Amino acid sequence: MTRDPGLASWLQLTLTPGLGAAAIRAMLRQFGLPHLVLARKPSELAAYAAPSALEALHSETVRRAVDAALAWVEEPGNALVTLADATYPRMLLEIPDPPPLLYARGRTELLQRSALAVVGSRNATAQGAANAESFAKALSVSGLTIVSGLALGIDAAAHRGGLAGPGSTIAVLGTGIDVIYPRTNAALTAQIVERGLLISEFPLGTGALASNFPRRNRLISGLAQGCLVVEAALASGSLITARSAAEQGREVFAVPGSIHSPVSKGCHALIKSGAKLVESAEDVLGELGGFRASGFASTVQSADVARASAEGTGLLEHMGHDPVDIDALCVRAGMSAEQVSSELLRLELAGRVAALPGGLFQRLEKGAADG
Amino acid sequence: MTRDPGLASWLQLTLTPGLGAAAIRAMLRQFGLPHLVLARKPSELAAYAAPSALEALHSETVRRAVDAALAWVEEPGNALVTLADATYPRMLLEIPDPPPLLYARGRTELLQRSALAVVGSRNATAQGAANAESFAKALSVSGLTIVSGLALGIDAAAHRGGLAGPGSTIAVLGTGIDVIYPRTNAALTAQIVERGLLISEFPLGTGALASNFPRRNRLISGLAQGCLVVEAALASGSLITARSAAEQGREVFAVPGSIHSPVSKGCHALIKSGAKLVESAEDVLGELGGFRASGFASTVQSADVARASAEGTGLLEHMGHDPVDIDALCVRAGMSAEQVSSELLRLELAGRVAALPGGLFQRLEKGAADG
Repeated sequence: MTRDPGLASWLQLTLTPGLGAAAIRAMLRQFGLPHLVLARKPSELAAYAAPSALEALHSETVRRAVDAALAWVEEPGNALVTLADATYPRMLLEIPDPPPLLYARGRTELLQRSALAVVGSRNATAQGAANAESFAKALSVSGLTIVSGLALGIDAAAHRGGLAGPGSTIAVLGTGIDVIYPRTNAALTAQIVERGLLISEFPLGTGALASNFPRRNRLISGLAQGCLVVEAALASGSLITARSAAEQGREVFAVPGSIHSPVSKGCHALIKSGAKLVESAEDVLGELGGFRASGFASTVQSADVARASAEGTGLLEHMGHDPVDIDALCVRAGMSAEQVSSELLRLELAGRVAALPGGLFQRLEKGAADG
Repeated sequence: MTRDPGLASWLQLTLTPGLGAAAIRAMLRQFGLPHLVLARKPSELAAYAAPSALEALHSETVRRAVDAALAWVEEPGNALVTLADATYPRMLLEIPDPPPLLYARGRTELLQRSALAVVGSRNATAQGAANAESFAKALSVSGLTIVSGLALGIDAAAHRGGLAGPGSTIAVLGTGIDVIYPRTNAALTAQIVERGLLISEFPLGTGALASNFPRRNRLISGLAQGCLVVEAALASGSLITARSAAEQGREVFAVPGSIHSPVSKGCHALIKSGAKLVESAEDVLGELGGFRASGFASTVQSADVARASAEGTGLLEHMGHDPVDIDALCVRAGMSAEQVSSELLRLELAGRVAALPGGLFQRLEKGAADG
């Protein structure tokens, strides 16, 4: 997708072993874009990196890795997003250590959406997973994109819920984007590539290294306006994501549970230290304030009520040609939020409707340019 | 117990229909003790009460009710505690509307103890009732007196837990103290009269009037340093008690639960509006701060560990003659907190040990004056 002529230079910097994101950002600040950094003599870069890293910078190994990535990005659906791109997520620019380069597969436009992180335990209870999916679905229906880490348990349920609404979902990987981990989530991964977005800051082929996952968590929280923890043990990765969210100035939400459940103890610890206790998607939306009026959330809650309306309705007739949000459509069409959102999804896939930032939707005329 | 010569005057004022606690306190402030109020001409009291109430004040009906109460207080274990008594609970003097007179059955010395209110739903889940009993027991073991409302469900479980430790329990009734309500709690009521304390501000014979229960709740919270809500529905009496606690400047605690449980919704609403989420008695003790070091609470939590020590140990030998608290005794005697507290209870009932305010215990020599 990105055809920046300097893309090879971005790859060359980020694929050099021993050259970290902080060093790269410092060199970019000093010298400008990557091809200008690469034009400098090693002596000029000595203040930023170890001699071994500077030696590796122009090595054959790095050149081959760059070529492989350039070949990868040619494949349909794949993209590279650099710090300098207009499509680089604005929210990540606010965090202390944004990655210089993101590997992406799927709908990169989701990077511009208002998002909420939904994370939790791999050892989720059945109820916890159901809660995660239900929160994520309601939030996605309200237009928020659900960000999570593609782990088993709560993460997977959150992605499934996100996919069920127009907000869709972003999975931030702790491996290279071409590495499917855990393999149990292969089918879900394929769905996310199709209808959501997969991203990673790690080079292609990077395996599952324990140390990469906590680092990855800062992107899950960083991409989002808030972080919802559904079930988490004490001393778990989800609490790292929540702490990272708090440090990034994001709101932290936690779902309570039994005081006897080990996977509620992390949530309770968060609430004790200031996280908002939430019982429903409405609670989350209410706290996010700026995003959507709470009136909509109650529409979501009453979604089951009006399930009777016809499938395949002429929803387009109710859309006019101005951007419109789901609650307005519910009122106009007399349909539940769930029906409207699933119909919108069909229309979106059929190219009849475009999803706009902020949970708005716009009708597309046949043959019109994509919104 | 109280043999104040003016007791008949206190009864006469408080048993007069139409003469409320606020009016009585105003007259006491103006004229002094009740017998001085009663010596005033009706015209002097006209500013404080309706003519019908002033007429009733010296009626035969009121005189008979006074005589009945004076006969009642002669029975063993019964007591009347007036606002002017040294034994009137200090904590109630801090609330905006302390009752002028309390009817009491049982150990009135409990009115001087540090206390915690533990309340909740009549329709408690089995787990909720078990939680209430377990919190109350651990807090009572730590020396806190458990105050509740003798309702079915959480209240009853809280009283049972309180009775299992040296802190014991106070039941604040919404009926006359001679009315057992609900009857299902008759056996528990008898235990509380025996080893705890029953109190009421309502005249003898007052039946279960819906309007009296919310009013009673201010005394449950008022007697205590904090109020713990274990399970509560939205719009329930427990939330009235919690609100009353907050208004009285007491700490409010709530136990979280499943977001799908109707009797956790009240607790969650409290936490959202600022109540402390608590998972254990240790959490409560930690927040109460001044009361007991948290080190003790961990002793309580590990109470099950050292259950092996001998029953009927020579605990007295470890007591010396200075006041001592349970955690010190646990260390000295190598016993669990549960063992120490049940042994202390036996010794207390045998008149060998006195329970002092603040959770301290002191050894009594045979023939010594009661502490």
